Amino acid sequence: MTEFSQDCLARMRRVTTATLTTQLFKRGLRNCFMQGVRPLGQYGANLAGPAFTLRNIPAREDLDRVEGFANPEHPQRKAIETTPAGHVLVVDCRGDARAASGGEILMTRLMTRGAAGMVSDGGIRDSAPISRLAMPVYCAGPSAPLNLAVHHATELQVPIGCGGVAVYPGDLIVGDADGIVVVPAHLAEEIAVAAEAQERLEEFVLTRIQQGAALPGTYPPNAETLAAYEAWKASQ
Amino acid sequence: MTEFSQDCLARMRRVTTATLTTQLFKRGLRNCFMQGVRPLGQYGANLAGPAFTLRNIPAREDLDRVEGFANPEHPQRKAIETTPAGHVLVVDCRGDARAASGGEILMTRLMTRGAAGMVSDGGIRDSAPISRLAMPVYCAGPSAPLNLAVHHATELQVPIGCGGVAVYPGDLIVGDADGIVVVPAHLAEEIAVAAEAQERLEEFVLTRIQQGAALPGTYPPNAETLAAYEAWKASQ
Amino acid sequence: MTEFSQDCLARMRRVTTATLTTQLFKRGLRNCFMQGVRPLGQYGANLAGPAFTLRNIPAREDLDRVEGFANPEHPQRKAIETTPAGHVLVVDCRGDARAASGGEILMTRLMTRGAAGMVSDGGIRDSAPISRLAMPVYCAGPSAPLNLAVHHATELQVPIGCGGVAVYPGDLIVGDADGIVVVPAHLAEEIAVAAEAQERLEEFVLTRIQQGAALPGTYPPNAETLAAYEAWKASQ
Amino acid sequence: MTEFSQDCLARMRRVTTATLTTQLFKRGLRNCFMQGVRPLGQYGANLAGPAFTLRNIPAREDLDRVEGFANPEHPQRKAIETTPAGHVLVVDCRGDARAASGGEILMTRLMTRGAAGMVSDGGIRDSAPISRLAMPVYCAGPSAPLNLAVHHATELQVPIGCGGVAVYPGDLIVGDADGIVVVPAHLAEEIAVAAEAQERLEEFVLTRIQQGAALPGTYPPNAETLAAYEAWKASQ
Amino acid sequence: MTEFSQDCLARMRRVTTATLTTQLFKRGLRNCFMQGVRPLGQYGANLAGPAFTLRNIPAREDLDRVEGFANPEHPQRKAIETTPAGHVLVVDCRGDARAASGGEILMTRLMTRGAAGMVSDGGIRDSAPISRLAMPVYCAGPSAPLNLAVHHATELQVPIGCGGVAVYPGDLIVGDADGIVVVPAHLAEEIAVAAEAQERLEEFVLTRIQQGAALPGTYPPNAETLAAYEAWKASQ
Amino acid sequence: MTEFSQDCLARMRRVTTATLTTQLFKRGLRNCFMQGVRPLGQYGANLAGPAFTLRNIPAREDLDRVEGFANPEHPQRKAIETTPAGHVLVVDCRGDARAASGGEILMTRLMTRGAAGMVSDGGIRDSAPISRLAMPVYCAGPSAPLNLAVHHATELQVPIGCGGVAVYPGDLIVGDADGIVVVPAHLAEEIAVAAEAQERLEEFVLTRIQQGAALPGTYPPNAETLAAYEAWKASQ
Repeated sequence: MTEFSQDCLARMRRVTTATLTTQLFKRGLRNCFMQGVRPLGQYGANLAGPAFTLRNIPAREDLDRVEGFANPEHPQRKAIETTPAGHVLVVDCRGDARAASGGEILMTRLMTRGAAGMVSDGGIRDSAPISRLAMPVYCAGPSAPLNLAVHHATELQVPIGCGGVAVYPGDLIVGDADGIVVVPAHLAEEIAVAAEAQERLEEFVLTRIQQGAALPGTYPPNAETLAAYEAWKASQ
Repeated sequence: MTEFSQDCLARMRRVTTATLTTQLFKRGLRNCFMQGVRPLGQYGANLAGPAFTLRNIPAREDLDRVEGFANPEHPQRKAIETTPAGHVLVVDCRGDARAASGGEILMTRLMTRGAAGMVSDGGIRDSAPISRLAMPVYCAGPSAPLNLAVHHATELQVPIGCGGVAVYPGDLIVGDADGIVVVPAHLAEEIAVAAEAQERLEEFVLTRIQQGAALPGTYPPNAETLAAYEAWKASQ
Repeated sequence: MTEFSQDCLARMRRVTTATLTTQLFKRGLRNCFMQGVRPLGQYGANLAGPAFTLRNIPAREDLDRVEGFANPEHPQRKAIETTPAGHVLVVDCRGDARAASGGEILMTRLMTRGAAGMVSDGGIRDSAPISRLAMPVYCAGPSAPLNLAVHHATELQVPIGCGGVAVYPGDLIVGDADGIVVVPAHLAEEIAVAAEAQERLEEFVLTRIQQGAALPGTYPPNAETLAAYEAWKASQ
Repeated sequence: MTEFSQDCLARMRRVTTATLTTQLFKRGLRNCFMQGVRPLGQYGANLAGPAFTLRNIPAREDLDRVEGFANPEHPQRKAIETTPAGHVLVVDCRGDARAASGGEILMTRLMTRGAAGMVSDGGIRDSAPISRLAMPVYCAGPSAPLNLAVHHATELQVPIGCGGVAVYPGDLIVGDADGIVVVPAHLAEEIAVAAEAQERLEEFVLTRIQQGAALPGTYPPNAETLAAYEAWKASQ
Repeated sequence: MTEFSQDCLARMRRVTTATLTTQLFKRGLRNCFMQGVRPLGQYGANLAGPAFTLRNIPAREDLDRVEGFANPEHPQRKAIETTPAGHVLVVDCRGDARAASGGEILMTRLMTRGAAGMVSDGGIRDSAPISRLAMPVYCAGPSAPLNLAVHHATELQVPIGCGGVAVYPGDLIVGDADGIVVVPAHLAEEIAVAAEAQERLEEFVLTRIQQGAALPGTYPPNAETLAAYEAWKASQ
Repeated sequence: MTEFSQDCLARMRRVTTATLTTQLFKRGLRNCFMQGVRPLGQYGANLAGPAFTLRNIPAREDLDRVEGFANPEHPQRKAIETTPAGHVLVVDCRGDARAASGGEILMTRLMTRGAAGMVSDGGIRDSAPISRLAMPVYCAGPSAPLNLAVHHATELQVPIGCGGVAVYPGDLIVGDADGIVVVPAHLAEEIAVAAEAQERLEEFVLTRIQQGAALPGTYPPNAETLAAYEAWKASQ
């Protein structure tokens, strides 16, 4: 199982997904932000944790019946019971929000087991109570129908697509009000540091802009602005 | 006109659309939840009432002029004036939200006439004041353009499609924060009872999950959990 | 640069986009409301101001690099620095919300420069802090990725499309909770007056409807209602 | 039942749908061409005939079973048996091509009954043999699934939408290789004459263009070109 | 590896996908026809063979480089080299046709290895020469870009989605001019027999319809027509 | 005006768009193939020539009237009259095929003026005769409505988007049966040579594959295959 340092995770909880996409863009990664996946509630700190993945394919009427849930090996239920604490359950629904990928009981169980959050490119039912849970849940929107009407859960911990982005088990998932960015595991530590540095500078830049500075020379900063930033940083 | 018992309607106001789609799924009905139709406001109890239907076709420039509204037989206006008290006006806009299917004056009139609510797979104009009405309104989103720019109202009380679901006049329409489910009239009484029973059990299950129970044996419940549930129910 | 009278702008801040689309419809303009463009925050008075336009084309990997922002002539940055006070920056992103068309620093600079607002049919990053700015921002939704991943800014102050609507520099842009309507510059003064008159009448009509009046004769008003309206107006 | 003169129908079989949309545009009708509806085969003369309409809503699993076809009143079957000779059966499938709106046996029966053709914004099964029938068939594409999987036929001879265009029973339907245009019944005779005149002139213009004439003065024609055209016409 | 009888495969090569969807509908399977997947060429007999599956996820820029193809274990290349003779390679591209899932060299190799065909819900490059191969190829359309621009091949022989339908390794894939139907392996033998019987009867019905018979009593056939059919069948 | 060598153009007419996207991918350009743009006819050699661009925005009812075409400066007409011989007219219709971007007379004039071809991400009317012209025409599909119903031509020779790809005036446009690839002007000469070399090698590889060679070692070729290729090349 991927391990990220506590420093890395703490930084990821503070920076924005906007900053992270910029850092990934600088490293040649343009397709890292999930399309059509939004937070159900309003959350304080970012969602941040390694991905634990569940893959769905289209349902088939003779296979996908409610009786199947009695089997503790049913992959949807098993995903809830095996996502490690601190991890994010990421569910590939092929971007199809016509049915739910989970509801209040499953999300509550996931939360009590210590998961960091849940991300799906399908729907979520019971969206009102789930939006009030302490655990962040991201999805393609509220959708009441039972998952079996559209989705068949097949596999855990394989590479998946979610919101049009590749997600490998153990990639670092970060979410804020804009949505979800997937940081490849091997880049996470480095990007956490770079993102925090970028945001520190942008905090300074924003203050200047709020005080009336023009963009040229300020954003991006020229040598003078950078010197002022260094002085400001030293003074804190 | 379809009549549902007061018990049925009361139950439908309490259960979730998620539970109703599960009950319908068990009876072979998979396509019962409107896609792309969302509540404009936040409402307390569910919207619940029999469907009164209005059908639109695409507008034609020479036919759809503002002068037409002076005719009290204009089907859009007539729909507002004839939806029976307690009923839900359901409007087929072919899922086209480029124009409105109603605005503040019409929604206010519908409410004062005692309608239970309004559901459309087109747009709604004046979305801000309408979202604050006591009467629930569901639609494909805010959309300012006059209905005549895109929609031509043709018929009342015929079977329609709305949000991709068949709606027959008199079907029971139920809405919560997730969206709208259409319960065929002949199934409504039976499903109201079954849904309430399901939710009672799930309330018990959720409590156990909140207390740390694992899914296997709890959800779905095994014999032991069911026995505990029966004891709990008896104790209340 | 187009100039609108202060009266015109004041009226436009009070009327709804619904009323404006009706006025434009009566003048033969059916396609004037941006599709898929929504307010990021909740704003008091309407957004209203002349359009200042920026056009984007798809990005190309060898041309769209972060180094480009250091050039003060970069059209995206130049747009922020040259939108006149009271104007609305309108950005053509070809309806593609896979990346941002701006973030917190740029929006803050635009606001401090006195712009009336920003409208884009692309995404916006840093959506949470931007939604709390005093300046209204409308877009196709939150989207974290750097604009360079998808968009290449090319030109200022040319006619553009935004949300499927033609926008000519100097057209009057008006936005409320429903969304954005584009009023051709040559019609703005006339329509502002007509819209206010329409809303005055509809305010009276709404009061009657709230008191229980039926639609026929009231909405649209017949001679009797119009006479009552004139009396009411005179009495105020 | 609408009657068009034999002259009108003969002209409509010769002109193009491009010309017809231009004539309708000049009369204020912009939305008259079905979107997403294409010919299955290659046909000689145009499809031309009055519309006979069939409306579908979404299927419901408990109502839409194969046994229903044994009822001769089943609207899909009745549509095939009652479309008058020379008419075009136009089928509203809400633009949903996930299932068929007809197959080889029904299309053959429609042809033997003398219908002019069939137009649907749903799918068609048995597309290969149907594309070789003498009767033109237009649809949203080949699609094998049984109509009952997605569509429920409800009504004959009501106004419908098809391909995003309003179709009233008796409107004149014209189809060529570009697709289908709907000519409102009251305009058909007039437009047939105007379209033929336009095409005669364009035939002359095209000859000049083929001979190397430039667009200015030729297309649209100036007085000199018009005079030459009149002379050419007189000489034939 | 699934084995179907030679009789079953021979029947499947003769019947239509329309008939197969009807047989599956009668057994409760409504979602069995791939949406948006069409034949590249015109083929004589049906494509028919067991599914051999390949799964793709979205590409990631740092992982998906042309050098990867030198590895004989690259799943795309391995799929071509291991699809058993008589099988159909079915490729899950998440319905994304922005890039190819194969080109002329790979399709030629697949053909020389004896595969029955290839089905993808992504694009195909070199569509012109591939459309002339003896081996049927179905896809979402011609698309030149290298697969690595959009797709990352991950796994062979797992359940996938293709064209919105579940495909399990060994399911029977059948394709004609309408498109592709997926017959679950356990139903294939039974359905092949039933489909052939249905088509025999429909051949008789079609002859009657061609001779002028009306639908009622003929399609579906009543007792008299069925008796005539039995006599006709016996006479052959 | 961009000039490409005759050798470059001759090579571009022979290679495939598939090969060109591979060459561009190797140089970091992934988004170079127009999505949703297809050839109207079947053409022999590739379309190849520098881009001459025309930009459209959405139409506005009061501005876009047929009378406008009488003005020889109307940008659509001017585009036809000024595209240099050997160039490709590339038209940005924002991917909207609801109306035409040209018809038979304009395409004929463009051809007689010596243009290499026409590419649009909008529709084309008169698709049947245009598909038989010697000059290749690519578009989003047949669409009869007059351009003015949806499109307003604004500018010539500015950077545009077409089919989701950036097109700068003078970029090299190449089209075959798969579709259209845009080669940035500065890369064209180099890529033409590299593409031809790649295709020469792939011709040899394909022959080996046709003779039964397996992919490993052959495609991509290992040292042995490359040596055999060099020998074969030398022998020719």
